[in-house]
Amino acid sequence: MNIHSEINTTVDPIKLDKLAEVAVKVGLQLQRDQDLVMTAPLAALPLVRLITKHAYMAGAGLVTTFYSDEETTLARYAHAPDASFDKASGWLYEGMATAYANGAARLAIAGDNPLLLSGQDPAKVARANKANSTAYKPALEKISNFDINWNIISYPNPSWAKVVFPELPEDEAVLRLAEAIFAASRVDVADPISAWAGHNANLKKRSSWLNGERFSALHFTGPGTDLMVGLADGHEWHGGASTAKNGVTCNPNIPTEEVFTTPHALKVEGHVSSTKPLSHQGTLIDEIQVRFEGGRIVEAKASKGEAVLNKVLDTDEGARRLGEVALVPHSSPISASGILFYNTLFDENASCHIALGQCYSKCFLEGASLSQEQIAAQGGNSSLIHIDWMIGSDRIDIDGIKADGSRVPVMRKGEWA
Amino acid sequence: MNIHSEINTTVDPIKLDKLAEVAVKVGLQLQRDQDLVMTAPLAALPLVRLITKHAYMAGAGLVTTFYSDEETTLARYAHAPDASFDKASGWLYEGMATAYANGAARLAIAGDNPLLLSGQDPAKVARANKANSTAYKPALEKISNFDINWNIISYPNPSWAKVVFPELPEDEAVLRLAEAIFAASRVDVADPISAWAGHNANLKKRSSWLNGERFSALHFTGPGTDLMVGLADGHEWHGGASTAKNGVTCNPNIPTEEVFTTPHALKVEGHVSSTKPLSHQGTLIDEIQVRFEGGRIVEAKASKGEAVLNKVLDTDEGARRLGEVALVPHSSPISASGILFYNTLFDENASCHIALGQCYSKCFLEGASLSQEQIAAQGGNSSLIHIDWMIGSDRIDIDGIKADGSRVPVMRKGEWA
Ligand SMILES: [Zn+2]
Ligand SMILES: [Zn+2]
Ligand SMILES: [Zn+2]
Ligand SMILES: [Zn+2]
Repeated sequence: MNIHSEINTTVDPIKLDKLAEVAVKVGLQLQRDQDLVMTAPLAALPLVRLITKHAYMAGAGLVTTFYSDEETTLARYAHAPDASFDKASGWLYEGMATAYANGAARLAIAGDNPLLLSGQDPAKVARANKANSTAYKPALEKISNFDINWNIISYPNPSWAKVVFPELPEDEAVLRLAEAIFAASRVDVADPISAWAGHNANLKKRSSWLNGERFSALHFTGPGTDLMVGLADGHEWHGGASTAKNGVTCNPNIPTEEVFTTPHALKVEGHVSSTKPLSHQGTLIDEIQVRFEGGRIVEAKASKGEAVLNKVLDTDEGARRLGEVALVPHSSPISASGILFYNTLFDENASCHIALGQCYSKCFLEGASLSQEQIAAQGGNSSLIHIDWMIGSDRIDIDGIKADGSRVPVMRKGEWA
Repeated sequence: MNIHSEINTTVDPIKLDKLAEVAVKVGLQLQRDQDLVMTAPLAALPLVRLITKHAYMAGAGLVTTFYSDEETTLARYAHAPDASFDKASGWLYEGMATAYANGAARLAIAGDNPLLLSGQDPAKVARANKANSTAYKPALEKISNFDINWNIISYPNPSWAKVVFPELPEDEAVLRLAEAIFAASRVDVADPISAWAGHNANLKKRSSWLNGERFSALHFTGPGTDLMVGLADGHEWHGGASTAKNGVTCNPNIPTEEVFTTPHALKVEGHVSSTKPLSHQGTLIDEIQVRFEGGRIVEAKASKGEAVLNKVLDTDEGARRLGEVALVPHSSPISASGILFYNTLFDENASCHIALGQCYSKCFLEGASLSQEQIAAQGGNSSLIHIDWMIGSDRIDIDGIKADGSRVPVMRKGEWA
């Protein structure tokens, strides 16, 4: 009955306001008269309010926000009948898809407790996730096809902060996480908007070099890893700001440190080990080891969460194949912070990573004009899921392999070569 | 940045839990595996959580809740561009209509600050309300046609409590309003479920008598009032629990003290004065005086909120005609409390009232099988709006007029005759 403990009120209000401004002006580049659909944990209310204010000041048409509540989510697991776990609010996601088709932008505030569901029956968690992914597909496609400008940004939800800093009292944990979010999101500087312009230019330089090299594969080697990742035909590298099909240039992820592209769904061979734990919808999956044959994961182990991992891989055929490969230097600011965030938005930007499942059509040359069939023919994977996990560290080397078999050093010991 | 003051944590937890149980078991009669769509002010979170728990314990499939936030609503009025005020989230309401068509139940928690928008430009308020009513129509029709079981219940939102008890400190105002809600909702007794069974039986007795009399009109007389309200052909009186088209017997309003039916949209003559202020979407409309000719309001005055009233009447043709007439004895517990709630759910149950706009198809004999055209032909009104306002007091007499012109006393000085 007491939500005071869940709503933190001591987070630096100036930086939080800057974060909201960056979400609207850099993350979304929200357009005049454009509607906005926002989702947020209830605890992120202070940030929701600031983003709403900045959105309307930027000329937003209508801002509509949906809140998730950890307590009611747990009430479902505690009390709902078994049939509940195959249900999802498809009518809501179809509505969101309609809103995006009509031109609305999309903002998600991340910050849920990464361990929220770790005590629940993994079979129920998997069924609920699958039902939700299936129902969410019409809306997710508008985002993964980059039809509209969208953004994910984070709020230091106390339940998340306690997972990241278990040794600190809650208030201190929230403040530490808040400062880490502000730093990684580049709002701890005098002029965050121009800081983002500079950062976007740097990421552009890296992706342009990779696009010029036109590698046919990347070879990852390191402890527990010897992985050849074929790249999709006509793949294109992206990083930082990017232009959606509606013509708006936005920064979908804040923070972001990665340059990324589409692997070939049929051309991944070898084995790879995760280098950071993966927090997947409330469950922690740690020390993943998988083996690929013909692009398909044929063997998967994990020291923690192996059952959930294998449920995930069984979601559909595309869940066992890659939809993304991304390069992040080990010296990236998020990695340098030394914090394990248990949150993909941050942890994937501390480390080279790969993603199981759905590819991004924008990671193809002229991707906007390719049909689903053409994307598949060029090696683009499709799936209900898109799950990033971390395979980079200061002990990983990466070579680019050209069509003639020649090798170009891309990274050495986790840094750009 | 501080929502602590908006979330009250001292409301009696036992009675609040009973209120949640009554909402699920009496208000909705929620069925096993039935989904639930809930809307609530953010401040009602404690009640949302308890209702969610009781819903899942009763076997709910999936509970989906949408929160409104007074601060973001005001941010829109403060900062949004002019075009925003002709917009509404039609995609969301269409989604809700789909959910109801697929069998979901509907619960609304009332408790918004009745004066929230009283400082805003009435033209913008009217435009935003009209856009919202238009967009909401597909969902509202499922409710006004009684396709599904639905319920409205209240939470003592602090911003509402301060309007009801302006002389009290906020905490005391909330406690006073909470106790008034608990009493009116019959959860301050040992066994609320059986208290509701008894109350429903009493209301049934009244509506059965009225249905037996088959009046063709009701004649209201009192200070400032001489009003002949023709009743629709084949009208049916209802009160208390009622059975939706999906077969579920529910109590749509908690509290409820009224018996009500459908007036004839073309057969209302004379003048009537309101006896309590009407709080309409954030604006207070007081001392209404209107004159009807041929069922249509041809003159409307108010001492406060007259501009908003006239905007409302201009919503559409049906907004000037009646969709409901309801009888409530002056001695009803809500009236006896002496509290003016500035909230229709309560104030309409303290007083005889009429409603502008949309009629309820269930208030016709065999209403479920009537087409929109048949309902109109029998005198049923249609409109985007349904706004109840109070015309009863201890100085009002009501006669029932039979087809042959004979009169039967229905109420004298506000009490059943
Ligand atoms: Zn990535
Ligand atoms: Zn990814
Ligand atoms: Zn009524
Ligand atoms: Zn009514």
